[in-house]
Amino acid sequence: MDSKVDKALAENFNIVFKDESLLDEALTQASYVNEHPNQNLKFYERIEFLGDAVMQFVVSEYIFKRYPQLPQGRLTRLRAAMVNEESFASFARECHFNDYIRLGKGEELANARERDSLLCDIFESFVGAVYMDQGIKKVITFAEQVIYPKLDEGRFDDYFDHKTELQEMVQKNGPVSIDYQLLDENGPENDRVFKVAVLVNKVELGVGEAHSKKHAEQRAAKVALDQLKRKM
Amino acid sequence: MDSKVDKALAENFNIVFKDESLLDEALTQASYVNEHPNQNLKFYERIEFLGDAVMQFVVSEYIFKRYPQLPQGRLTRLRAAMVNEESFASFARECHFNDYIRLGKGEELANARERDSLLCDIFESFVGAVYMDQGIKKVITFAEQVIYPKLDEGRFDDYFDHKTELQEMVQKNGPVSIDYQLLDENGPENDRVFKVAVLVNKVELGVGEAHSKKHAEQRAAKVALDQLKRKM
Repeated sequence: MDSKVDKALAENFNIVFKDESLLDEALTQASYVNEHPNQNLKFYERIEFLGDAVMQFVVSEYIFKRYPQLPQGRLTRLRAAMVNEESFASFARECHFNDYIRLGKGEELANARERDSLLCDIFESFVGAVYMDQGIKKVITFAEQVIYPKLDEGRFDDYFDHKTELQEMVQKNGPVSIDYQLLDENGPENDRVFKVAVLVNKVELGVGEAHSKKHAEQRAAKVALDQLKRKM
Repeated sequence: MDSKVDKALAENFNIVFKDESLLDEALTQASYVNEHPNQNLKFYERIEFLGDAVMQFVVSEYIFKRYPQLPQGRLTRLRAAMVNEESFASFARECHFNDYIRLGKGEELANARERDSLLCDIFESFVGAVYMDQGIKKVITFAEQVIYPKLDEGRFDDYFDHKTELQEMVQKNGPVSIDYQLLDENGPENDRVFKVAVLVNKVELGVGEAHSKKHAEQRAAKVALDQLKRKM
């Protein structure tokens, strides 16, 4: 692989491959292999198969341990929010993997380098290669750097369903009224901001703002949940 | 958990739980928890979430390494044949997990103990508990005993698609004729046996017998493949 790639991986992720051929395999698309028939190259698909399973496992264990109260259905939804084509493609871009892929000329012209499906594949194949070369601990370190901080940044908040969680929490011991009230909406038509309050038994426990009412309600519910949890 | 269960797990799988509460959790259905509200019990669903991911990972790595020539699509199909409700339910039965589950009375009467979906869940939750208690190596040892031998016994052969593999192998360097010929069919209407030969460039390379033509063709292709591989 390009020594610039090696340098970037070492600097950004402290990853130095012992077996460079695994990295080559992970970053090479079939179209490139077909254009270089005499170089005995491998393309990423097999190692992506492995990386996909490794990533599912690592993320599953992380959220299982981090959220010891979250029931199975919610764990499954959260994992689905973290482990999918769109989010893996965005991680791949943030890691600059789009610059590292080896593509055939046709695929290059078709701008495959920016295609979500390919970027997701490459993110998984990279993880597969790291696992093969350096084991599960290095994959976990990589996920701690690239994926888990996004949980705290709220990247997957929409999937958390704070409204359901709030409802379950306050109605545990019997019926309690929960109302969401639109307090305000502002801004131009194409960039509208909604401000919503959540009232539990007519007491305002949280306010949230977002570009849709649904998201504003989720954010209000999150604020209310955080407040209730602090009191417990 | 029942000491008979502990004894059976130790004898059959050399598994002795350090933290018995993990085993209890893995083998307890929600209906049982609901009937014993004061015992502060947990049911298996969360640990099943983890066990599912652990099992996918362990099986993926195993077939990835065992079949270094199998392309991604075939690895995916093989994994799907190994990791699914029907096969996990059968593994659970072979391990006698159906006898170990703690069920509520209604579920017991509804014969939930023999339901594939529950048995599959329990197989996964058991794996999750072994992983939590003793780590990935013990899970691999368990899979080596319970799952992988079934590969050699041909349990997943239908999913291997030997016909496609044979075609890919012999047509690698250009077109070659492959014909399947019904040699014989025998037995009563409801227990018919078909005997099929595969001819590659008009030379018979394998014969297979099964209760359907399709399976007999697959078996013939497998015999031909084994023969060709021995010559390579």
